[in-house]
Amino acid sequence: MPHHSIVADVGGTNTRVAIALDGQVAPDSIQKFANAGHESLTEILTAYRKDHDVVKFEQVAVAIAGPVRDGQGCLTNLDWTIDCASLTRATGAPDAHVLNDLQAQAHAVGSLAPASVEDIQTGQNASPEAAHLVVGIGTGFNSAVAYQAPGGTLVPPAESGHATLPVSTADQFAFAEYLRSRFGHAAIEDALSGRGLGHCHDWFCHQVGHPIGAKSAQVFAAAAAGDQMAKDSINLFSCILGTVLGDLALTTLPFGGIYLVGGMSRAITPWLGQTGFEAAWQDKGRFGPFLDQFPIRLVTDDYAALTGCASFLEKLRVAH
Amino acid sequence: MPHHSIVADVGGTNTRVAIALDGQVAPDSIQKFANAGHESLTEILTAYRKDHDVVKFEQVAVAIAGPVRDGQGCLTNLDWTIDCASLTRATGAPDAHVLNDLQAQAHAVGSLAPASVEDIQTGQNASPEAAHLVVGIGTGFNSAVAYQAPGGTLVPPAESGHATLPVSTADQFAFAEYLRSRFGHAAIEDALSGRGLGHCHDWFCHQVGHPIGAKSAQVFAAAAAGDQMAKDSINLFSCILGTVLGDLALTTLPFGGIYLVGGMSRAITPWLGQTGFEAAWQDKGRFGPFLDQFPIRLVTDDYAALTGCASFLEKLRVAH
Repeated sequence: MPHHSIVADVGGTNTRVAIALDGQVAPDSIQKFANAGHESLTEILTAYRKDHDVVKFEQVAVAIAGPVRDGQGCLTNLDWTIDCASLTRATGAPDAHVLNDLQAQAHAVGSLAPASVEDIQTGQNASPEAAHLVVGIGTGFNSAVAYQAPGGTLVPPAESGHATLPVSTADQFAFAEYLRSRFGHAAIEDALSGRGLGHCHDWFCHQVGHPIGAKSAQVFAAAAAGDQMAKDSINLFSCILGTVLGDLALTTLPFGGIYLVGGMSRAITPWLGQTGFEAAWQDKGRFGPFLDQFPIRLVTDDYAALTGCASFLEKLRVAH
Repeated sequence: MPHHSIVADVGGTNTRVAIALDGQVAPDSIQKFANAGHESLTEILTAYRKDHDVVKFEQVAVAIAGPVRDGQGCLTNLDWTIDCASLTRATGAPDAHVLNDLQAQAHAVGSLAPASVEDIQTGQNASPEAAHLVVGIGTGFNSAVAYQAPGGTLVPPAESGHATLPVSTADQFAFAEYLRSRFGHAAIEDALSGRGLGHCHDWFCHQVGHPIGAKSAQVFAAAAAGDQMAKDSINLFSCILGTVLGDLALTTLPFGGIYLVGGMSRAITPWLGQTGFEAAWQDKGRFGPFLDQFPIRLVTDDYAALTGCASFLEKLRVAH
């Protein structure tokens, strides 16, 4: 008899729920809910379970866009708190886990289909035990590292998007000052997120007195149509991305590769070759060439966080 | 019969070698060698072993100030390459390991005597499984995190000192530009190291046309004697330290505490209360209060890297 788990990916806007059979997400079980119409995750999971009431779930894992500590977490951009006891009540699964969404993405790395990964920079081959860094750029920014430890894959949580925005040029520093004047602080995710690309564009508009407030999709569309200010915004975003990825690579040494995930990662990748991304990535003085060994890859699978939850639960189950 | 290991801590200038008995460093076995008089670590270890030729060593672990990959490493500031095979030849120990020195320091955290740890900031209590971040400030800058994984303590390597120097004010940006003009890049360790405090002082001297080139010990002495430029240099160092520790805390979430090690950590700690350190540490926008939960501690034990090597070997031995 297959082992059934329930997995969910709770973003700032939507929640995806699915069933995993023996560690594999069942594609036709995936269901998407708008958070706006619901009071809590419990309500969504209860509704989902009602549609699958013949199934007995042994485990549940939920990936959330927010900090997790001691099995409990709250969403950064939504007033929901999620803990293991409420997950068990909503799903009937006795074994419940809350993961940060980037932790879930990092657990997915070993299980991704080759078709859902694209090379951005090839790097060097590494041993199967090498660490993977996953960087998520979407509504916010965060990262997580998957380490192959003797007892299994270890993925510690992180909140790296709230670290100080690094700047390398006078223009970038002026941009950071602009962010500080608007938000009181210039964090990485104020530049590297959907909002962040909007802020990059706002900064160029602000300098020439144009109205601000374009969404990231509008900036990409304008750049595709040849608009210089939109292209400059994409270049600023890309250069900062190069700097930040280089800093994270030095801090975590992901010899197994850097995996970019999230909507903004997919949207920015086609532009990287036309920008200062690579120069910024290598701008680490005598440690610049050291960075060449780290491959950078794009994950195009929308459901990687669900795959990661399923993979995490399966590894736990096999270990016990 | 006790289990004998040989452990060593190879810095840029000196190498310390000791014997560990059942995972404990024997204090009277510690011997210090100046690297300058020796061709290689092999030569030092061979000399040390000659003095202890009645002992049969089962294991050897060496902590080095430089990047380590797949059991081999090279010193960042000295032309020595160190691998497991040469350690076995020099010591006779069949089980050989090369660690980055910060990895070794991180393995020491659980074995430090209470007398060799001082509170800088108390933080909140955490579970025994919580991660520890060790930050080394001395000749260079680096960090490592100790994670309690199901299979034992995992301490991944890092080279965080070569990441981009974060700046939060116009003065700090001007300082970073000064570093870039001198060294081609402004890395964290160009500010946060012995040399780094010298660079902070150089920057203030440069602005008023004074000669540059004071050593960190001279800056501390001048500040103690009331010299304003020396005090400003210490303040600049401390503010950048606050920013960098906050960034590393967000990237690694060390709920078990941040442990500062190295000569510069000890030298700067008494000054932190008179500087902008705490304000810089908390300057993370809405994530500022989140940082209050992380304790910050100073490690005053000079031999913590040796303790860490011994602890690492003992954990391996017990696991097998």
